[in-house]
Amino acid sequence: MAESQEIAATRELRLSQSVRGMGSSALREVMELASRPGVLSFAVGLPATELFPREALAEETARVLLTDPLALQYTLPLAELKQQIVGLMAGRGVRCRPEQVFVTTGATQAVDLLAHLLLDPGGEVLLEEAVYDGIRLAVRRFAPRILTVPSNADRGIDVEAVAAALAGGARPAFLYLIPESHNPLGVSLPPESRRSLVELARRYGVPLIEDDTYGLLGEGSQPALRALDEDWVLYVGSFSKILAPALRAGWAVVPEALVPRLSMLKHAADVDTAALGHRAVAAFLAAGRLPEHLQTLRQEYLRRRTAILASLAAHMPPGVRWNRPASGFYIWVELPRSIDATALLRVAVETEQVAFAPGEAFAAADAAGIRHCLRLSFGNCPPERIEEGIRRLGRVLSRLIATT
Amino acid sequence: MAESQEIAATRELRLSQSVRGMGSSALREVMELASRPGVLSFAVGLPATELFPREALAEETARVLLTDPLALQYTLPLAELKQQIVGLMAGRGVRCRPEQVFVTTGATQAVDLLAHLLLDPGGEVLLEEAVYDGIRLAVRRFAPRILTVPSNADRGIDVEAVAAALAGGARPAFLYLIPESHNPLGVSLPPESRRSLVELARRYGVPLIEDDTYGLLGEGSQPALRALDEDWVLYVGSFSKILAPALRAGWAVVPEALVPRLSMLKHAADVDTAALGHRAVAAFLAAGRLPEHLQTLRQEYLRRRTAILASLAAHMPPGVRWNRPASGFYIWVELPRSIDATALLRVAVETEQVAFAPGEAFAAADAAGIRHCLRLSFGNCPPERIEEGIRRLGRVLSRLIATT
Repeated sequence: MAESQEIAATRELRLSQSVRGMGSSALREVMELASRPGVLSFAVGLPATELFPREALAEETARVLLTDPLALQYTLPLAELKQQIVGLMAGRGVRCRPEQVFVTTGATQAVDLLAHLLLDPGGEVLLEEAVYDGIRLAVRRFAPRILTVPSNADRGIDVEAVAAALAGGARPAFLYLIPESHNPLGVSLPPESRRSLVELARRYGVPLIEDDTYGLLGEGSQPALRALDEDWVLYVGSFSKILAPALRAGWAVVPEALVPRLSMLKHAADVDTAALGHRAVAAFLAAGRLPEHLQTLRQEYLRRRTAILASLAAHMPPGVRWNRPASGFYIWVELPRSIDATALLRVAVETEQVAFAPGEAFAAADAAGIRHCLRLSFGNCPPERIEEGIRRLGRVLSRLIATT
Repeated sequence: MAESQEIAATRELRLSQSVRGMGSSALREVMELASRPGVLSFAVGLPATELFPREALAEETARVLLTDPLALQYTLPLAELKQQIVGLMAGRGVRCRPEQVFVTTGATQAVDLLAHLLLDPGGEVLLEEAVYDGIRLAVRRFAPRILTVPSNADRGIDVEAVAAALAGGARPAFLYLIPESHNPLGVSLPPESRRSLVELARRYGVPLIEDDTYGLLGEGSQPALRALDEDWVLYVGSFSKILAPALRAGWAVVPEALVPRLSMLKHAADVDTAALGHRAVAAFLAAGRLPEHLQTLRQEYLRRRTAILASLAAHMPPGVRWNRPASGFYIWVELPRSIDATALLRVAVETEQVAFAPGEAFAAADAAGIRHCLRLSFGNCPPERIEEGIRRLGRVLSRLIATT
């Protein structure tokens, strides 16, 4: 993919993020700066554009359109796709039935509809202090009280803090988390934390929304939380990272009794019908193309992860630390506490034309604890650009740390 | 299209309607009955399956996927599609700018997001007594007070009733209506009613949500309400009926200041990004294929409308009246007041294997005034099936009216 196109893609996303109206005005301003042409960006969580199976999807989509008279009509959600998702879930250690699968317009819709189902206006939700920004957006219209617990870039969510909050009487509508390849932290939750979380969910009757957007990308991913409990874990999956975002295809795995209620909410939102993107996904899967494609993705993201870890080791000055995720395409970097990553982003773009997402962008509530942190999203950068980008970031940081 | 497939399509839709949880349990039960295999159905508002331009869309979609590296990536809503929509709007008598166009996951999402924007929990909305069921679903989660005004199958919404409600102090969050080819009534609003409504909207500061889903299907459609006012008319358009539902492509035309707010809501709902369906539409339009396709649709729907009107004249017993819409694919039938159309549907399915949508299904609030009415949706029935279906319905009604 040409560099100009890649830049255009990230610029577009940055602009669209800026209208979400989240974060400080300083953050919005530097995120716009980061979208300047020529900036080498680790800012936006894009999957690798050049790895999308465009030819295969073109072939399968055309075939579906030419052979299925109902491919373009209003029809029920695809039974075939639900069955295929049951198969994918087995790969995440989860046994489920097609009746528990609910197909959505991307994982974002699944989270949005689940939030609608569980959260009353003015209710409470429990989030990690560093959290995927989409969940804040999903709950925003309910103006909830947001309870936060610390999360750690090496061990994930602080389960003892969750236990203490619940023991102290908190009864949030749900706890949302990404146990595998966390966004923005990159970390995957250790097995003992998973068991403890599920036990807490059961004991206190607090549902866990498990966002497993990256789970199928990991070679050695642990089983999903949903493998441990089918009543209190509401699972969300996505084809955006394992196939392509523009297909707008995601799913939830929930207790069967919730499916009609989700269907009613989806009817109101955008009609609970099979979309062209869903048919394209189902055809791609039916042709048996996913296993090889996943293999390609895992190898390439591993290559990029290896490259960025080596580049960080080579170019970061002392005082900077980062984690070493075994999967996904995010790395969490902690700078000396005196450095504000949002301010750093401005300097980085202006002096070295390199960008990242500052910690503030992911603050569930108060950003104080993560203002000195940043997320590197390397999924859409080939290794040679990763090396160059981290070298640039290293120069900015070395100068800054030398003068402070 | 094979009959069995057509039946499958309508059965699927009926089942999906039944889970919406709307209407009486008697209604849900007969709607399930109506989905039985072998039933000749005028019940669901489906466009003609065999008129979808499947080959052209297969070709254009494959071309986009093969030639545009960003076709599957997260990107901004398509500027090209917005510009194309500006061109379509000119065909509806509307001058607008791309900055006023907001692309959605079908018209349903446009209505849903506008309702979110305008309506506070517990607020008021103004609806016709016989209304598209989707709007009730969209506002349901806000538990609004629903104010209703009468509507007439020959003249549309009762504008004097609207004026009286507003003069009496009502200040609903919006008035939703379908001025052209009304669903379920089939009627198009006369010019003087349009002017009066827009004047009322301005005078009282009450926005009109204009659902123009069928506007481009009409050969001689009047200009959209939006042509009369760009501040108080919030326009909703759809590609579901002029291209295909499974593309999930619709749009709104609104004051430019509302677009960022809609974008934020769409980000939360399913991400404000270009979807594969949007690219397929844009490519179809860019290839210049729409005008000829629209011509085909208009001719065929006219042929079907002519057939159903002739069949009704031939087979309906005295005491039954119906309107004669000049566009769209719905006809509203009024039975003698003593007949409950929901009860009739059960008899019609069981004795003659013919189905329709009873008036109750479209009641904004109290169904009393339309319980003796029914909607015939003939868009997905070729003329020979229309003739046979209306003959069957005529037999059911003749027997019923003879015995009462």
